[in-house]
Amino acid sequence: MSHQIKYQISEREMPKQWYNIAADLQNPPSAVIHPGTMQPVGPEDLAPLFPMEIIQQEVSMERFIDIPEPVRDVLRQWRPTPLHRARRLEKALDTPAKIFYKYEGVSPAGSHKPNTAVAQAFYNKNEGVKRLTTETGAGQWGSSLALAGAMFDLEVEVFMVKISFNQKPYRRAFMESFGAKCFASPSDMTEAGRAILAENPDSTGSLGMAISEAVERCVQRDDTKYALGSVLNHVLTHQTVIGLEAIDQMEMAGEYPDILIGCTGGGSNFAGLCFPFIGQMMRGGDEIDVIAVEPANCPTLTRGKYAYDFGDTAQMTPLVKMHTLGAGFVPPGFHAGGLRYHGMAPLVSQLVDEDIVRPVAYHQTETFAAGVAFGKAEGILPAPEANHAVKAAIVEALKAREEGKAKTILFNLSGHGNFDMAAYQEYASGNLKDEAMNDQEMAMALAGLPKVPEPVAAE
Amino acid sequence: MSHQIKYQISEREMPKQWYNIAADLQNPPSAVIHPGTMQPVGPEDLAPLFPMEIIQQEVSMERFIDIPEPVRDVLRQWRPTPLHRARRLEKALDTPAKIFYKYEGVSPAGSHKPNTAVAQAFYNKNEGVKRLTTETGAGQWGSSLALAGAMFDLEVEVFMVKISFNQKPYRRAFMESFGAKCFASPSDMTEAGRAILAENPDSTGSLGMAISEAVERCVQRDDTKYALGSVLNHVLTHQTVIGLEAIDQMEMAGEYPDILIGCTGGGSNFAGLCFPFIGQMMRGGDEIDVIAVEPANCPTLTRGKYAYDFGDTAQMTPLVKMHTLGAGFVPPGFHAGGLRYHGMAPLVSQLVDEDIVRPVAYHQTETFAAGVAFGKAEGILPAPEANHAVKAAIVEALKAREEGKAKTILFNLSGHGNFDMAAYQEYASGNLKDEAMNDQEMAMALAGLPKVPEPVAAE
Repeated sequence: MSHQIKYQISEREMPKQWYNIAADLQNPPSAVIHPGTMQPVGPEDLAPLFPMEIIQQEVSMERFIDIPEPVRDVLRQWRPTPLHRARRLEKALDTPAKIFYKYEGVSPAGSHKPNTAVAQAFYNKNEGVKRLTTETGAGQWGSSLALAGAMFDLEVEVFMVKISFNQKPYRRAFMESFGAKCFASPSDMTEAGRAILAENPDSTGSLGMAISEAVERCVQRDDTKYALGSVLNHVLTHQTVIGLEAIDQMEMAGEYPDILIGCTGGGSNFAGLCFPFIGQMMRGGDEIDVIAVEPANCPTLTRGKYAYDFGDTAQMTPLVKMHTLGAGFVPPGFHAGGLRYHGMAPLVSQLVDEDIVRPVAYHQTETFAAGVAFGKAEGILPAPEANHAVKAAIVEALKAREEGKAKTILFNLSGHGNFDMAAYQEYASGNLKDEAMNDQEMAMALAGLPKVPEPVAAE
Repeated sequence: MSHQIKYQISEREMPKQWYNIAADLQNPPSAVIHPGTMQPVGPEDLAPLFPMEIIQQEVSMERFIDIPEPVRDVLRQWRPTPLHRARRLEKALDTPAKIFYKYEGVSPAGSHKPNTAVAQAFYNKNEGVKRLTTETGAGQWGSSLALAGAMFDLEVEVFMVKISFNQKPYRRAFMESFGAKCFASPSDMTEAGRAILAENPDSTGSLGMAISEAVERCVQRDDTKYALGSVLNHVLTHQTVIGLEAIDQMEMAGEYPDILIGCTGGGSNFAGLCFPFIGQMMRGGDEIDVIAVEPANCPTLTRGKYAYDFGDTAQMTPLVKMHTLGAGFVPPGFHAGGLRYHGMAPLVSQLVDEDIVRPVAYHQTETFAAGVAFGKAEGILPAPEANHAVKAAIVEALKAREEGKAKTILFNLSGHGNFDMAAYQEYASGNLKDEAMNDQEMAMALAGLPKVPEPVAAE
């Protein structure tokens, strides 16, 4: 009667290289543009922010990049992560679909974020950096970088979006337990923060603002670099350990996904699971319906514009071509803090633009309902971000039931919800709201996009 | 350069039987006494509380007990749990000792508790029970039973110690997300609760009180049974999957523990790791220094009396022989909610009495310091309960350094601290207190123990 529900590969089978999807794209990735010169940025432009190894990875066209041994040494503590068959959920949904999920919540920070935090901390340490600055929304990324900083003996300064800083004091305590410093953003520590506060003293902050502050604090000091938890190519590449492991684990299970699902904020957990599979598809493998799931309140891929934009509010970062709602966009309050970014990873945006990835959006109430149903069946309460992936998986499983097709679905359960019980409490009490912008608000948000001559191809 | 830090056995290697230490004890376990007749209780006395299969396990002398397939099916979601070598902690301590830890925090509730919750839910469901009542301190056990109830479609009512209920609203939200009901104890729903409130309307509750309420709510209804998260023999037996896995994993590592460590509240995580090793020792295996670590604020094993006592405040449970501080004992406030019980598992108590297990006590501030040091080295912030085991492991590792001995230490990291960040916050701010009773207070606490004729041997 027993059937396997977990596909676990050994520590020795953990990937030794990351997968870089740039090598397999039909079209070259768009160049990153310097907003002053409107010319593609070079390594020297990025050197104040990132160590050289990371700058090289950002523009690398190599298909595989070696994972340094000290990085694998830390990752092996919780990797390979398990891949589960959700048999009880299948039964509850009465679906012929086979539902698999890759579970990243077993990491010490409870999500996929440490996969790149550890790598970034290592490269910075290796090039003599003493201190990292970063921003965090709900706290997952800040916690992960704090943890990685402790592993490699680096100072870490985290600018946390003020509303989350106030709502989630335990996230701050977590970061501080690992020795990091955590500040509410906008703060009075930076020009960017002071300018925002001058205009709006009650600003509750945004990821875009926090990025401006973290970047400013970085460039002020020679021994300090900046770390970003999503969006950029190297971050997505570091997350591909997820999908590379999943390929081996699906093989153990004797299955291959027909449908692949990840939630998208900046794009990193989605890319982590999906890019290695998309790479196989682009190199002639089986067709997969790849679904990127975003919140209807921050509909970057489904309603935003594919255009050049700044990564931050204060317009300090280079311009990248991505789906965006405008760098000034502040989404209405909702609980999936990791999905509140105005933009999207350029690589994910390009795949959506090329119709290789299919974006969908759901409202938060329906995603929480999906998360609770998943929890009751599978015993794991997902993070609000991951609830978006769960919702899409359930939708596809029910569609498979209607069609009578035994589809194989694989989604990324990017983190657990143990840090997010306030949101579940609000959901249970019926107080969650589903806000979405109307078309006029959307048009206004997009009106301010910077003008950049197109097309610009990377070298 | 790479060295293994995790010893992971496959799902197929998960134990198929639990280990029951009663089969290997030098002396028979003490009988459980009916407080009315002062005679050993029989199965019929326990039938209102527990399903028959569990009652049989409670008195079983069989060395191994089959784990039902539906129980393994749920456990396999996160089991076998990893066993880690704490190489970075070893380096930080500059010790020749090899430090291993078994990590139970990967379970969906974040601790070892689901190991028995799942088994108990299954046996109850199997015998037609509709509803389970239980108590919880910090919320770990209640969360685990809520989760297990959802897996087997049972209603769950949790009486949560009032001070924790108020301090940890997210724990309640967690339980409710899985469909359980959660009440602050003492409540006005039971005679026991009303009597306590009549005497002290401001009572913040205790585990003993919450047990009284849960037992009362159970015996009122025919379709309802009671579940206990620690102390009893069957609970300890269910936890032995931890140690049975660890035996295989230490073999993979090519090591055998010289020192074995677990923290003790009711005794279940300690027993889970240690009993299978103690069994090997009692059957002629290598000597191990087995250390039970408790809080100095609730020093059951180190300062309590080994005597018959009630399991609960209202004196509704049978009498068991155990180390106890008296059923009326309410420990001073401290954060390791899972270690606040006035008594101790009879099997653990007996092993301490027979000098097979060595008890030690630490104050909470030093345990938090140990937990933070562990977190910075290993990347996992332990639960406050587990910090006691970490502290003892560090003490032993430093002793090994002094003695220049390459001792092998294995401890149980019974849960992560992600739900306990308020306590870490208090520690970081320097506000944690170390209270311990003076001898007079201790004598008073012990003065009220019930008089039971001794010795009484089990049938």
